[in-house]
Amino acid sequence: MKNLIIASTSTIHGSGYLEYILDELAIFFKNTDSILFIPYARPSGISYNDYTKKAAEAFAKINKIVKGIHEFENPAEAIKNAQGIFVGGGNTFVLTYQLYKTNIIKPLQTAIKNGTSYFGTSAGSNICGLTIKTTNDMPIVYPQSFNALAFVPFNINPHYLDPDSNSTHMGETRETRINEFHHYNTPPVIGLREGSWLQVNGDSIVLKGSLTARVFEYNKTPYEVETGTELNHLK
Amino acid sequence: MKNLIIASTSTIHGSGYLEYILDELAIFFKNTDSILFIPYARPSGISYNDYTKKAAEAFAKINKIVKGIHEFENPAEAIKNAQGIFVGGGNTFVLTYQLYKTNIIKPLQTAIKNGTSYFGTSAGSNICGLTIKTTNDMPIVYPQSFNALAFVPFNINPHYLDPDSNSTHMGETRETRINEFHHYNTPPVIGLREGSWLQVNGDSIVLKGSLTARVFEYNKTPYEVETGTELNHLK
Repeated sequence: MKNLIIASTSTIHGSGYLEYILDELAIFFKNTDSILFIPYARPSGISYNDYTKKAAEAFAKINKIVKGIHEFENPAEAIKNAQGIFVGGGNTFVLTYQLYKTNIIKPLQTAIKNGTSYFGTSAGSNICGLTIKTTNDMPIVYPQSFNALAFVPFNINPHYLDPDSNSTHMGETRETRINEFHHYNTPPVIGLREGSWLQVNGDSIVLKGSLTARVFEYNKTPYEVETGTELNHLK
Repeated sequence: MKNLIIASTSTIHGSGYLEYILDELAIFFKNTDSILFIPYARPSGISYNDYTKKAAEAFAKINKIVKGIHEFENPAEAIKNAQGIFVGGGNTFVLTYQLYKTNIIKPLQTAIKNGTSYFGTSAGSNICGLTIKTTNDMPIVYPQSFNALAFVPFNINPHYLDPDSNSTHMGETRETRINEFHHYNTPPVIGLREGSWLQVNGDSIVLKGSLTARVFEYNKTPYEVETGTELNHLK
């Protein structure tokens, strides 16, 4: 049975790395002492070792041991043997490039289908959707495909940002960008604000955290959903 | 001899479409009465016809006739015969996808090398760089390649935005994103603020407009350059 936390961000303003969600993670990962970390998204180009150390320090507070996937000789085997997986944020294109390069797309899909707990933040949440076509990141590398892990039957937009009515900047708002997505693609997009996450439990997908989320469906006016809303019907 | 205006934006805050740069365009396009418009980037999914109409209305003020490339049976031929070309903004991935699909990458490169005047805004400026890897746009379609037209020997970041020290949002700043680019790529990146443009005349590349631009070179601290600065040495 699928078991996922798909979080908008790792960090909320004024708080430490993963701090806002640690209590949830203690419950979520209650059946495992060790977590496999996938550091491929490399925020600010941090090394795999340093990024894994950062994740390990946060998880130590709830008594979990973290090992980086790069420490294993066979990444597919490491995924198969993991009881819990965490994919951290950074650059979604770099992450996706590396998932294809290391041939772990299929192993991840199989593991999650078989009930391995998956926690993603930011880029690690983007790849839970059908494609990475609603990432906010810069396309600094060219991945083999924009197709993602499809753990949920729609797309994710993490770090969702409301239009700033005081801005004089003429670049597209997030809402404009997602509306443009729907000129070429039909799946729904969930705009997850920082501090929100989707909790997936089998067939149930529920919005968690204190904020509303913005849902963009093809050919519909975007709308807000309250925390606690089941989003299973979206596809 | 190359002759280009590579502008950060089509529109500055509080002003009409192309208004801030129309006087420059009158000089730039002084040797042609008609301009070929490439509407492929389709901002907000606008139709080619409507987008061309919008460009035509702006250019009518300086007595230029605008025709959309989609009105021609053979796009490559239309480019070959054009004396002036304007590529408008919108989504850089959509634009790049369509440039490859219609096989006009090479024809554009040949035309510009032979002296056809090229004016680009936003997405239309992004593609003047080596690659589209420093676009701000959402990857809503998967183009055949991220390689662009390489009219200048570096990358462009249009709509360049300074970090907002009051922001509580945890998404990456523009500077962080461009620094991440340099973990995987070595070419310089010019962050062009709205209202700035690069004027290319043969081998000369000069920053124009009233603002400074931010230059990101591989393994160097980013720095500002004043308007009027020659950027020919960057590569």
